[in-house]
Amino acid sequence: MSYNLLKGKRGIIFGALDENSIAWKTAERVHEEGGSFVLTNAPIAMRMGQINELAKKTGSQIIPADATSEEDLALLVEKATEILGGKLDFVLHSIGMSVNVRKGRPYTDEKYDFTVKGWDVSALSFHKVMQALYKAGAMNEWGSIVALTYMAAQRTFPDYNDMADNKAYLESVARSFGYFFGKEKNVRVNTISQSPTPTTAGQGVKGFDGFINYAEKMSPLGNATAQDCAGYTITLFSDLTKKVTMQNLFHDGGFSNTGVSQEVIEYFNK
Amino acid sequence: MSYNLLKGKRGIIFGALDENSIAWKTAERVHEEGGSFVLTNAPIAMRMGQINELAKKTGSQIIPADATSEEDLALLVEKATEILGGKLDFVLHSIGMSVNVRKGRPYTDEKYDFTVKGWDVSALSFHKVMQALYKAGAMNEWGSIVALTYMAAQRTFPDYNDMADNKAYLESVARSFGYFFGKEKNVRVNTISQSPTPTTAGQGVKGFDGFINYAEKMSPLGNATAQDCAGYTITLFSDLTKKVTMQNLFHDGGFSNTGVSQEVIEYFNK
Amino acid sequence: MSYNLLKGKRGIIFGALDENSIAWKTAERVHEEGGSFVLTNAPIAMRMGQINELAKKTGSQIIPADATSEEDLALLVEKATEILGGKLDFVLHSIGMSVNVRKGRPYTDEKYDFTVKGWDVSALSFHKVMQALYKAGAMNEWGSIVALTYMAAQRTFPDYNDMADNKAYLESVARSFGYFFGKEKNVRVNTISQSPTPTTAGQGVKGFDGFINYAEKMSPLGNATAQDCAGYTITLFSDLTKKVTMQNLFHDGGFSNTGVSQEVIEYFNK
Amino acid sequence: MSYNLLKGKRGIIFGALDENSIAWKTAERVHEEGGSFVLTNAPIAMRMGQINELAKKTGSQIIPADATSEEDLALLVEKATEILGGKLDFVLHSIGMSVNVRKGRPYTDEKYDFTVKGWDVSALSFHKVMQALYKAGAMNEWGSIVALTYMAAQRTFPDYNDMADNKAYLESVARSFGYFFGKEKNVRVNTISQSPTPTTAGQGVKGFDGFINYAEKMSPLGNATAQDCAGYTITLFSDLTKKVTMQNLFHDGGFSNTGVSQEVIEYFNK
Repeated sequence: MSYNLLKGKRGIIFGALDENSIAWKTAERVHEEGGSFVLTNAPIAMRMGQINELAKKTGSQIIPADATSEEDLALLVEKATEILGGKLDFVLHSIGMSVNVRKGRPYTDEKYDFTVKGWDVSALSFHKVMQALYKAGAMNEWGSIVALTYMAAQRTFPDYNDMADNKAYLESVARSFGYFFGKEKNVRVNTISQSPTPTTAGQGVKGFDGFINYAEKMSPLGNATAQDCAGYTITLFSDLTKKVTMQNLFHDGGFSNTGVSQEVIEYFNK
Repeated sequence: MSYNLLKGKRGIIFGALDENSIAWKTAERVHEEGGSFVLTNAPIAMRMGQINELAKKTGSQIIPADATSEEDLALLVEKATEILGGKLDFVLHSIGMSVNVRKGRPYTDEKYDFTVKGWDVSALSFHKVMQALYKAGAMNEWGSIVALTYMAAQRTFPDYNDMADNKAYLESVARSFGYFFGKEKNVRVNTISQSPTPTTAGQGVKGFDGFINYAEKMSPLGNATAQDCAGYTITLFSDLTKKVTMQNLFHDGGFSNTGVSQEVIEYFNK
Repeated sequence: MSYNLLKGKRGIIFGALDENSIAWKTAERVHEEGGSFVLTNAPIAMRMGQINELAKKTGSQIIPADATSEEDLALLVEKATEILGGKLDFVLHSIGMSVNVRKGRPYTDEKYDFTVKGWDVSALSFHKVMQALYKAGAMNEWGSIVALTYMAAQRTFPDYNDMADNKAYLESVARSFGYFFGKEKNVRVNTISQSPTPTTAGQGVKGFDGFINYAEKMSPLGNATAQDCAGYTITLFSDLTKKVTMQNLFHDGGFSNTGVSQEVIEYFNK
Repeated sequence: MSYNLLKGKRGIIFGALDENSIAWKTAERVHEEGGSFVLTNAPIAMRMGQINELAKKTGSQIIPADATSEEDLALLVEKATEILGGKLDFVLHSIGMSVNVRKGRPYTDEKYDFTVKGWDVSALSFHKVMQALYKAGAMNEWGSIVALTYMAAQRTFPDYNDMADNKAYLESVARSFGYFFGKEKNVRVNTISQSPTPTTAGQGVKGFDGFINYAEKMSPLGNATAQDCAGYTITLFSDLTKKVTMQNLFHDGGFSNTGVSQEVIEYFNK
């Protein structure tokens, strides 16, 4: 089902790795809604993905860029506006990675080189992306910037490790930059706090299956899928949400405001 | 601009008083998007409004109902599904009134008969509406229920008086009923926390002009208008937000997450 | 262990039912810390309790009062200041009851007479208490008013029923009245959001044992007990927290900011 | 006034720069309450301060340590337990600095080397401190760790710049580490979100005078002072708050939950 919600709109989508990615589903959905975009990912991440297939399917070009590099980002923004033929209306930031998690370091035994790297990739990169867009004057008025996040920024999920702190930083960047982008350019910035999602990245987290099972039982509407998230993101890119900014929006079937569900409490009644 | 976002969807819209009302703008917008609905308001409120004009314009019928009366609501739900030819997909609750405010009673000198009345009309009515819908089995799966609220539920705005407490109750009802409506019927329930809006009702609040001026200066994107709110509500009624539930969603140009703006702080620099 | 934290301070304690009550433990603790107070409870609730024993032990007088009655409250405030020999420094509101819960009405089938009664007793009573104190000018500067609440005000716990909405209203009243009491009288008003506690009242809630077991496993420090709560309340009555106001303070061993614990997730890993 | 609240307790206090520092006032207050401690600060910061005077007054020793250095922290923890004669009961982290702010770089033109440095000093240092304590097994059961933060972590204050993002990270670290420290060691971790305070550090922020004036007018009880904060911190170090953990506690005279005050709105009524 398409509504032409993004007809004529241009953007950049970060982080489409493979067909399980939220960014991948969003790219497909944006295309259906009439938007055009450039796909980007870190050179190293792209070797692992099937991003060419997505580019073909959506008539998009791919511009590799390391989201921690100011130079790469400046070039990306310049090329994207050139390719798309004008300033941008939407940007999706869907980037996250913890070296501590990958290397199996517990939260109470972080290796700080790993911590710095994960923070740079997962959190500071969002500031870098926006600063590149801001300095280049690359966003159209009433454009929309969205980053994906997770509720660990508010409450502790032990296996989520230092990604919790990275997401807290990311959400703060959305507010802080959203203030200036709003005031000076009428651009909105928000984060979507998504249900745990079985993406290729998500599945790497220890105990992920148990957790997704728990979240499903806790959420009155069940977990939101990557496809659901793509739909929600579309509304935030559309002209219907022009005055929503600096918000962290839970997209999680009600998990965030459920203290406990009947199904979960039954495990503890015996 | 129409996207056919609500094609074939049916609903009830409470609270369209006159063309300044958010509910009025929403009704117009729903109509543009292909939705059909019944308009309702308290018999006493309707005499003051121009609701017939809106009904004509949108091809809707009007069913007067006192939202504090279980009988009226049961009848409304029954008639609405009959008139619209099926179960409902969306409901807007836009009802609020404080007798203490109207009679000029300060928050520290409430008359409790007034308090009870205002709470019943502004807050408990939302429970009554949902209970009527729930008992009648009148909502379609993945239907969407929205109530309008204000940030006074989180932070004190002295002139907002007991409406703050009513809105806190209303938002809690959204979460509580949203849990059961989600779990058992796959229906979502949310509140939109809207910028101060110069509706006929809003303008009655003491010091409203100063306040709206302040909010405009505090909000990076400026205050959200009634028309903006109608657009946002459309997204929550659409199929693109199926997994958003039990949320209070700020629609306020960024006011809620702005500690202070540069424009406001200048008043205090001298 | 006593610190003389409340030496010379006077107050009123609502809601001591029996030795399991948080108010009972608080009364004992206040007495140890050198504070003097009047005990009060609804005439009907007092017949069930052993409040005389507590009065004797703490050298206190008992003044029965229905906390929904303006007359009773006015009289209580007058007598309390008379008995204690001066204005008040602290007040504890520990009152809550849902008729819907007692009568086994589910949240989706509330009887609204019950709802109104429960709201009046559990939520509006806090406003009534403060309005009585305010009008009588009965609080000393830098006095402290505390009400007990529960996290169901923020997130849904299905068996908590309409008490969730009552607690949301109560917490809003704390903020709203806290604003005026702060601005005009330098009095602070806060709520403590306490772990589920096996009081005589709490134990009446359906599925309470399973829930308290779940909460224990979710809280990194375990559930806070009634005795713990008494200690925390003492700090809020003391001169060490003079600038804390309009806050809802979680006292729950970390439950509120734990997304899931390792112990809980293990149930879902199989 | 002293209550002997911390009799026999041992700790470390970071960040006492001069007599305007919150850490300085807290050290004095802890001493009055019977606690003993080691003072520490960055070697470079200590040259600017009068910390020797404080050490003398409170009978404390000074151990210089760079809070971004794992080696320095390990040594500090070792020496502190040695000097104090046992494990620790309390730790205060009062450290923050933004190079971007110092060098006058606006938020939309961050120099990322500065950003990394400020984040390391202001935010990651809190993790490093706790990891050093955790690994050394240096905290007693029911010990208490407190860090100072600011509400910019939740809402944007434009001049606060990247310190907002640092404080968001710091508060997340409190929750994340609080989970593990609670679960495994029964140690609590909290942050105090303090009113803007005219410390030597705070006064360096652009527009600070206007802002503190604004905050004073917005807060029903007025801004909390450094002295007030010392008192509040004492309660969190005491045995009366054993079950409070993973919380961010606003200590601000009500600012955080005031939407607008009558005094502020008057500026906008004209």
